[in-house]
Amino acid sequence: MTEVGERTSNQPGNSRVEESLGKPVDNLLTPALLLRRDALERNLERMKSLVTGPTRLRPHAKTHKSAQIASLQVQSGAIGITTATVWEALSLASAGIGDILIANEVVGAEKIRCLSEAARNARITVAVDNPANARDLSDSARCADVELGVVVDVDVGLGRCGVRSLHEGVALAKQIAELPGLLLRGVMGFEGHCTFEPDPKRRSRFAREAMSRLLQVADALEAHGQTVDVVSAGGTGTYDSTGSNPRVTEIQVGSYAFMDTSHAAIVPGFDYALTVLSTVVSRHGNTVVLDAGKKSLGLDDPPPSVVGHAAAVRYVAEEHTVLDFDSEVPALGASLELVPGYCPVTVNLHDLYLVVDDGVVVDAWPILARGAGWSSMR
Amino acid sequence: MTEVGERTSNQPGNSRVEESLGKPVDNLLTPALLLRRDALERNLERMKSLVTGPTRLRPHAKTHKSAQIASLQVQSGAIGITTATVWEALSLASAGIGDILIANEVVGAEKIRCLSEAARNARITVAVDNPANARDLSDSARCADVELGVVVDVDVGLGRCGVRSLHEGVALAKQIAELPGLLLRGVMGFEGHCTFEPDPKRRSRFAREAMSRLLQVADALEAHGQTVDVVSAGGTGTYDSTGSNPRVTEIQVGSYAFMDTSHAAIVPGFDYALTVLSTVVSRHGNTVVLDAGKKSLGLDDPPPSVVGHAAAVRYVAEEHTVLDFDSEVPALGASLELVPGYCPVTVNLHDLYLVVDDGVVVDAWPILARGAGWSSMR
Repeated sequence: MTEVGERTSNQPGNSRVEESLGKPVDNLLTPALLLRRDALERNLERMKSLVTGPTRLRPHAKTHKSAQIASLQVQSGAIGITTATVWEALSLASAGIGDILIANEVVGAEKIRCLSEAARNARITVAVDNPANARDLSDSARCADVELGVVVDVDVGLGRCGVRSLHEGVALAKQIAELPGLLLRGVMGFEGHCTFEPDPKRRSRFAREAMSRLLQVADALEAHGQTVDVVSAGGTGTYDSTGSNPRVTEIQVGSYAFMDTSHAAIVPGFDYALTVLSTVVSRHGNTVVLDAGKKSLGLDDPPPSVVGHAAAVRYVAEEHTVLDFDSEVPALGASLELVPGYCPVTVNLHDLYLVVDDGVVVDAWPILARGAGWSSMR
Repeated sequence: MTEVGERTSNQPGNSRVEESLGKPVDNLLTPALLLRRDALERNLERMKSLVTGPTRLRPHAKTHKSAQIASLQVQSGAIGITTATVWEALSLASAGIGDILIANEVVGAEKIRCLSEAARNARITVAVDNPANARDLSDSARCADVELGVVVDVDVGLGRCGVRSLHEGVALAKQIAELPGLLLRGVMGFEGHCTFEPDPKRRSRFAREAMSRLLQVADALEAHGQTVDVVSAGGTGTYDSTGSNPRVTEIQVGSYAFMDTSHAAIVPGFDYALTVLSTVVSRHGNTVVLDAGKKSLGLDDPPPSVVGHAAAVRYVAEEHTVLDFDSEVPALGASLELVPGYCPVTVNLHDLYLVVDDGVVVDAWPILARGAGWSSMR
């Protein structure tokens, strides 16, 4: 896996990216997405040290969309990688990631064809909640002469994708097990309605209730003679409860790698590895305007925080963030770093990470399959 | 300007984009950003027919980030183009747009150098609210042997960039007029705090109050012997009040070109030209899940609307939008089009428009300088 970085590093044809390499952080074009490598590695080690039971890590690449980071996660013991889209899966499979779960339904002939293409380079597992979709996956896998792993997606309370009943889950699993080209691997359920509950006890209770819905389906499948090798669930906010459930085989933690202001209070002890570097472009009394807004930071709720300053965020506009300082107002042209409110939507805005070691840019890692996915791929 | 499209059309090296050309809309990879050319052209004509006094149009490219659309706007009578960033300006100047106002402060040596670079290909005007920044612009213009037009940026109530007082504005204008390499062209003020006021009478009153602050500075400059050729202001929400003020020389309307759910009630009569095409990937009773969310649609507030369906948007997640239908629930795999809540942040997520004529994709137009701007440029 060591060659992942070498093969995909840097953006071709952009001299401004090349010129950033070797520069100190306060001498860069802004806005810029900075990734502190030491903080990232500490976060990977910390999650590894926290989840030590039978449950394994399958980190979610929707947070980072990076072959280099996925590779670091696999090197630090992850069982494989989770993706949100077939384009993330295709990109990571091409870059050498060997075991990928697409934790969403893949629908449409061309997308399913790409899924089978990814299965030539990696063990691919995909979530399914519909019989017609299962048949389409089977047809494509047979045509491409590959095997697609499948998990039955179970709605554990989020109300989005996933089968709604035990009966539906069992019938779908039975169908999948009989379809050529598909390998039934188990079940998946995402307790996304629990992960941001601020009270730890309530969060754990909600997550346990969600897992009991998922495990009821797993039990029923086994009672009907089906294999359940995989019980996949969890996010960073529920790593402790879902990740310590001995029947959950893997958790899809994502945000722990970078941390952000929406997760910091919920999951303490991780470092901020990702920031958006910005410049003071306007300054009036105690008010400062930065050149980074929704177009490089993502959402304004929760607001970003400012590294090293007790500044109040007045608002985040399209290209600006407006801050109020009590004292020590930064000068015009000063560099400030903002910790995003939510990293996955921030990363999705950018083309690359400037990787920082000891305050200096040491590499530029591309962000893969961002936006619509298919149209940003080369 | 007719060659703009030819020179920059399509994304190099992405066969999936090439394969989209000539296809009908319901046979495309999703999510996809669709631009209906006839609706775009109707919107450009409509704004032209609505603003017929001495005030001219300087459409804002932050909405579209497209050389092709900027070119259509100039062809339909716009006096020039407004941009939010130096990267948008540099991209459009390279593509042949001849008159560009950067309606924000440009701070930092390298960005200012790029501004002067853009001034080799186009008449460039930039907003300034700080004496030190004015000196830096002057130094760069002299070094590059170009002239940079400057407007004094006036805070008209938004509380972001812009001088805060008449005195400050007059002193800055006087300094600019004396600095070599700079040409004082007038004043600018953005009444962004008024544009989304839902009540038309209040919106007009607020906008008039904002313009009176801007015109006080213009009057004071003229009283001190300075030239005020440019009074630039306005957005789509205030095109009627600000655009009919005979002392405002140009309005920076942007969203009218595409329209979106945040502007539709405020500025009626424009067509939806931009949608995000999506596919039904999960279906449970009356609930449908689409494969487009915050990563291809942008913000969830205001929510998108569904073309041709009276569906209720339950929520917009990262990669999904969840809809409830009263009846006629679309089938798994069906295509639906979503009208974004706010187009500028939606466009910023994508690499290209699929341009649609008569239900068929006829071209792919690149989206320039998106995200951080500098890092997405080739």
